Amino acid sequence: MRAADLIGRKRDREALSAEEWRWFVHGFVQGEVADYQMAAMLMAVRLRGMGAAETAALTSAMASSGEMLDLGALGAADKHSTGGVGDKVTLVVAPVVAACGLPVAKMTGRGLAHTGGTVDKLESIRGLRMDLGQDEFRRILDQHGLVLSGQSPTLAPADAGMYALRDVTATVDSLPLIAASIMSKKLAVGAAVIMLDVKTGNGAFMKTLPEARRLARLMVRIGQEAGRKMAAVITDMDEPLGRAVGNALELAEALVLLRGGGPDDLRALCLDESAHLLHLAGRFATVPAARLAAECVIASGAALELLRRVVVAQGGDVRQIDDPARLPTAPVQHAVTAPGAGYIARIDALAVGRLVMSLGAGRAVRSDPIRHDTGVVLLKQRGDFLLPNEPLALIHAASTYAATQAASAMLAAIRWSEERPPPRRLLIEHVSG
Amino acid sequence: MRAADLIGRKRDREALSAEEWRWFVHGFVQGEVADYQMAAMLMAVRLRGMGAAETAALTSAMASSGEMLDLGALGAADKHSTGGVGDKVTLVVAPVVAACGLPVAKMTGRGLAHTGGTVDKLESIRGLRMDLGQDEFRRILDQHGLVLSGQSPTLAPADAGMYALRDVTATVDSLPLIAASIMSKKLAVGAAVIMLDVKTGNGAFMKTLPEARRLARLMVRIGQEAGRKMAAVITDMDEPLGRAVGNALELAEALVLLRGGGPDDLRALCLDESAHLLHLAGRFATVPAARLAAECVIASGAALELLRRVVVAQGGDVRQIDDPARLPTAPVQHAVTAPGAGYIARIDALAVGRLVMSLGAGRAVRSDPIRHDTGVVLLKQRGDFLLPNEPLALIHAASTYAATQAASAMLAAIRWSEERPPPRRLLIEHVSG
Repeated sequence: MRAADLIGRKRDREALSAEEWRWFVHGFVQGEVADYQMAAMLMAVRLRGMGAAETAALTSAMASSGEMLDLGALGAADKHSTGGVGDKVTLVVAPVVAACGLPVAKMTGRGLAHTGGTVDKLESIRGLRMDLGQDEFRRILDQHGLVLSGQSPTLAPADAGMYALRDVTATVDSLPLIAASIMSKKLAVGAAVIMLDVKTGNGAFMKTLPEARRLARLMVRIGQEAGRKMAAVITDMDEPLGRAVGNALELAEALVLLRGGGPDDLRALCLDESAHLLHLAGRFATVPAARLAAECVIASGAALELLRRVVVAQGGDVRQIDDPARLPTAPVQHAVTAPGAGYIARIDALAVGRLVMSLGAGRAVRSDPIRHDTGVVLLKQRGDFLLPNEPLALIHAASTYAATQAASAMLAAIRWSEERPPPRRLLIEHVSG
Repeated sequence: MRAADLIGRKRDREALSAEEWRWFVHGFVQGEVADYQMAAMLMAVRLRGMGAAETAALTSAMASSGEMLDLGALGAADKHSTGGVGDKVTLVVAPVVAACGLPVAKMTGRGLAHTGGTVDKLESIRGLRMDLGQDEFRRILDQHGLVLSGQSPTLAPADAGMYALRDVTATVDSLPLIAASIMSKKLAVGAAVIMLDVKTGNGAFMKTLPEARRLARLMVRIGQEAGRKMAAVITDMDEPLGRAVGNALELAEALVLLRGGGPDDLRALCLDESAHLLHLAGRFATVPAARLAAECVIASGAALELLRRVVVAQGGDVRQIDDPARLPTAPVQHAVTAPGAGYIARIDALAVGRLVMSLGAGRAVRSDPIRHDTGVVLLKQRGDFLLPNEPLALIHAASTYAATQAASAMLAAIRWSEERPPPRRLLIEHVSG
């Protein structure tokens, strides 16, 4: 095989075989296919597109480009979100599902651009180690039925290399490449059951529902081709999810949810995803039965207790779980108040994501350091009526100057209305392949 | 400017400005734009295409990526062929035109794939230096009105880097990239008048007339945008040009043409191209007047004498010009004979090019060494009638084995007919923009 021939065939809209993709992708990792050849191939894929079966072949080649865990015997589950603003659902669903008896092996990413990452949120806990080796990952999973780790560089190494190239060659926005990137890491982790939460709206990477639907279906298909049980939900990310945005702030909100509190719609979404994952794994015969179990492990405190034990196992300071006031706190808290009277018609998720990033909670490039203490807590939501000067959000900032900047951005993110807007629906639809 | 943004705009079919192309191409030469970014850009250009004005901007950026000669004051001419099988026209036209008083500054390439290169043919002459520095190039041109040099690596360095990438990323067959590659070198050499010979047919890179026409028009337009006087001819390369194919063999045939001999159709083509170039440069008021001058400098021996002087100036053994029998001679000469009676209906140029390459006269990759002594001389042409066992070609080979292989390929390259085929027309059309 010659790399240039495979690129040429992709350029001419031919589908490459699974064997050809394996040769190309593994050759790339081994340095036999040059980075400029991969770059040309990625642009050809971006411009010529790729069918589902071929995308599955590419994904499988990427997944097998490094070590692969085999959690098949455990029947372990994984849950993945495509990323959004204020998305702490994984922090709730993982311990709830695990407390119901389904092992959850979660490798999770860092935040990028305006979206947060589960690793960053968890690292708000002092001492918590997220860079687990494979042995430790496996041991904690065996012992507790739950493990929360950062992405291992030895799993699907092709993805990291390909993503770095895509980032600088204008080939990020390709549906098959996005799907292959996400699913290659899932397949390498080896979970038998995978639940995907594909976000849509202006705070998500998939801005429109048709795009989100295509991505969800493609990823479900890729997982099924690899013999995994797959389901996906499409959820709204046009406005921030829940009330807190920012690393420690979101972790604290997740702890509130695990204690049975939190906003109704967000709690309902967490229970729904938990229930569908448990049902998909065959642990409960019906979704309502699974939902009941999920409610139980929250009410009994079993889910929170499991998270505590895993935090201890991973070296974290459990006092911060027991008393979230011990989580990092920003030096400045600044209330944002309503400039007049009216209903909140919409809170722009992208704008909120960006302002929280500008507070230091996110990163523009992977190597940026981040703050865990900053962010915003929305005191009011879409549909709430406010009087002039009524507080609507609390900015947590490193300085008064940063807080003032963020407050102004926060106000710009809100659209007002004289009438009550229609209610928001978080869960848009289920996708099962 | 960010490289990824420019790639993204090209990906989205936007035209980049002259300034943007200059930034990207010069950045590539200086190592600030990475090779994988250039590779992605080349694939985007290959798949999205590019208009004439933008191609001119890219060409100009490539031309100015290194040193540029300024031959404007001399009003020097250049003549370029897109390459074919048995194409020794440049070896005739350059001295003829120069002998008529129009300085010819010729930088020429090496052969690649199944086509020969003028440098390789000239290097059949013992001692002839083709790697002239700019000072020497200029001095010989000033003194003799003719210089024949290999491509200087300091002119249009972007082209060499881009071509190397195209070769391994399946982006060679892009009309704008082909045109930019050729014309960037022409513009860097700085000739004021440029004549292009675009070959078409199965032995050429442009297999069809519409492709050849598009390439010719595009290159004429690029040159005109850069203020050059431009003309192009489209000529047939479906069958080998003339009788000799192979380095020293072709040089010998060029010397025969410069002595007034050679095949009628080839001599007519050389005179036609010479006349149009002289007329384009404004040296003669009409093409017929220019053709008469071209015939005169052949008949008087002035063109051959000028070539002799330049060969001496460049260190070549002039006895090989005076007595072509002194040119390198292959150890084995093997006659190929007709397998039956009939008319030759066609001699496949690509097949002949390949068999001559397999005799060692060409190279698959740029670094391959080549032989100057091997090749084939066609004793018969399309339209000739042969009796069984009548010799039709003479193979010049390094060994009896190689000769036998080539003889069999030579026979396979011929199509026979019971009827006389229509005559071949070498000159298909003139293109003037």
